[in-house]
Amino acid sequence: MAYPPSIQKLIDLFSKFPTVGPRTAARFIFYLLKLSKEEFDKLISSISELKNKIKICKLCFYPFEGEGEVCSICGDQTRDRSLLCIIEKESDLTAIENTKKYKGLYFILGGTVSTLKKADIEKLRIDKLKERVKSPEFKEIIIAINPTTEGEATTLYLERTLQPLNKKITRLGRGLPVGGELEYADEETLSSALESRK
Amino acid sequence: MAYPPSIQKLIDLFSKFPTVGPRTAARFIFYLLKLSKEEFDKLISSISELKNKIKICKLCFYPFEGEGEVCSICGDQTRDRSLLCIIEKESDLTAIENTKKYKGLYFILGGTVSTLKKADIEKLRIDKLKERVKSPEFKEIIIAINPTTEGEATTLYLERTLQPLNKKITRLGRGLPVGGELEYADEETLSSALESRK
Amino acid sequence: MAYPPSIQKLIDLFSKFPTVGPRTAARFIFYLLKLSKEEFDKLISSISELKNKIKICKLCFYPFEGEGEVCSICGDQTRDRSLLCIIEKESDLTAIENTKKYKGLYFILGGTVSTLKKADIEKLRIDKLKERVKSPEFKEIIIAINPTTEGEATTLYLERTLQPLNKKITRLGRGLPVGGELEYADEETLSSALESRK
Amino acid sequence: MAYPPSIQKLIDLFSKFPTVGPRTAARFIFYLLKLSKEEFDKLISSISELKNKIKICKLCFYPFEGEGEVCSICGDQTRDRSLLCIIEKESDLTAIENTKKYKGLYFILGGTVSTLKKADIEKLRIDKLKERVKSPEFKEIIIAINPTTEGEATTLYLERTLQPLNKKITRLGRGLPVGGELEYADEETLSSALESRK
Repeated sequence: MAYPPSIQKLIDLFSKFPTVGPRTAARFIFYLLKLSKEEFDKLISSISELKNKIKICKLCFYPFEGEGEVCSICGDQTRDRSLLCIIEKESDLTAIENTKKYKGLYFILGGTVSTLKKADIEKLRIDKLKERVKSPEFKEIIIAINPTTEGEATTLYLERTLQPLNKKITRLGRGLPVGGELEYADEETLSSALESRK
Repeated sequence: MAYPPSIQKLIDLFSKFPTVGPRTAARFIFYLLKLSKEEFDKLISSISELKNKIKICKLCFYPFEGEGEVCSICGDQTRDRSLLCIIEKESDLTAIENTKKYKGLYFILGGTVSTLKKADIEKLRIDKLKERVKSPEFKEIIIAINPTTEGEATTLYLERTLQPLNKKITRLGRGLPVGGELEYADEETLSSALESRK
Repeated sequence: MAYPPSIQKLIDLFSKFPTVGPRTAARFIFYLLKLSKEEFDKLISSISELKNKIKICKLCFYPFEGEGEVCSICGDQTRDRSLLCIIEKESDLTAIENTKKYKGLYFILGGTVSTLKKADIEKLRIDKLKERVKSPEFKEIIIAINPTTEGEATTLYLERTLQPLNKKITRLGRGLPVGGELEYADEETLSSALESRK
Repeated sequence: MAYPPSIQKLIDLFSKFPTVGPRTAARFIFYLLKLSKEEFDKLISSISELKNKIKICKLCFYPFEGEGEVCSICGDQTRDRSLLCIIEKESDLTAIENTKKYKGLYFILGGTVSTLKKADIEKLRIDKLKERVKSPEFKEIIIAINPTTEGEATTLYLERTLQPLNKKITRLGRGLPVGGELEYADEETLSSALESRK
């Protein structure tokens, strides 16, 4: 059945949200239609003010709110400014911060590439990264890209691209995750778990 | 890590959307921040106009756009006006319309109840339903509520509530779905499949 | 790592059991090795006596134990001998008997076919079925093959093959299973659920 | 429906096999009944000879075939006899051997414990382990028990039990597995992945 045009237009827009398909998009709209006028207006104004209040950090590209051009992490002089951790996306920064184990700085690459086609690579912030890593304060560059097939291709590309800097370049350790089982681990994961025993 | 306040406020609002948790809500916001100004403004205006353009049908409670007080289905004099199909939610109407096999009218109940507590039942459109089914043109009331535990409790309640009308009250047929297997079907489903063989 | 030959040989044999792969087969063997001599011998003798004690019913092809050539269902004169239900495999008979709603007789076809190639069809008990359905006592033949893609192809083939008999031929009813949801049902299932409402 | 006694007896026995429930056990039996006499006899004899041909290694408790009292790994003088790897079960040995990265010896503990109740611990080969680790050739004891909740409790117990030996005791490294994602990793796994970066 055809939806009314103003609903269909919004289904199309919501379907572009990450993880959302047309069916979920339709459920979003039926949810919106049930909101009270106050709730609805609060949502609209909260979305609207996002673009006004939120700035993107000039150094790490994480969104922030407040004065200046850099986020609270990049501006924090008590953090370890010799470490730069390259991550794929914003939520990876949140995940690493939640461990409370990393005190260095970040750089959000903006994605991964499955091939080394120029058009793909240009979607990432490679030029900004090359510029950023030149800073002499960085002693170690940690490539913290997901160890998926696409992530591995991107990591290899970054290692090659950053090698001429003559800085220490590291990757996240592989191993068995909490709850993992030897019997079902792939050989590479189990090899790493054995090598990094302690 | 704490998100900036204007992001956290929106995470809280998006987390109330159906199927959305805080992690997906955060991904929605990172997606919004990457939109161009044109795309962002189009989204805001599409959401805003929803409340202005969309009306809720006075008879079936399905959202519609256009003149008058009733939706295109309820206003369509070529449909079979002797059949009323009671469904839980808007997307169930879409699912039934997509089969192109049903030509009667609908009534959206607005939910299901797990208990028969007054507070729960009052969240449904029971009074509106009682009013609607009085219309003498209806010869059969089809209760098309999902055969889940909660749906079954609701169906039983509806059957009891609508019985005094002395109209034919039916339920959807049970049976094996496409792709189903006898061996894994519960006894009730398999019994129904046997009884409704043809 | 290579297993000892007598273990590897048994892994190969267990891997042919339904649902069992080499990893599960290896776990079976480690389990067998942990059994006490009494438990081990009991298992061996139970398997061995299977072939001696169990016979296959000449009429429905279900395994049975005891005197004569037919199983207790086919020999039961109180069952409805006007109904013959064609099923794919032994466990489907158990599933239907567990509903306690069917009192007719059965015929185990021995599989399904994805194509109508002669070599595939010859794996089924088609000739035995043609012979069996000739019995004048059967008034209705119920084709209770799973409504999967392969099952549908087989059902179509059976309908065509049995049509010249001029007997009533039926299929299991389609519909929503217990716990199913309208929104996620395919159109054919939902159409059938609407048509078989009661 | 009741199965014939000789089938039901075998269903009960197969249901004790790892990963097997009554429904799968029934499918095993229908499979056995379809085997030719040759195939059936070959299976029976292969199972029977298992207990005759296979011995359990006196040192590591892995099953083996051949002369002597120890398996080919424990008897292999070219392996690194300063390393002892404690594992839960036989299939974990296979998994580690398949990586081709470990050249030391093994000890199969025979299970894990969720509590430190005496009755639970006595099911493991703790006394045999204490005896085995006394061998002065071992310089490092690797506890390679799955990092599940039960495995962790067992690892803690082993560490405490083996500490008086004054030998190096290590655990498998934690980290992101191949295919893992930062965003969905728990904090402990991600912390370990950061710490073991290289």
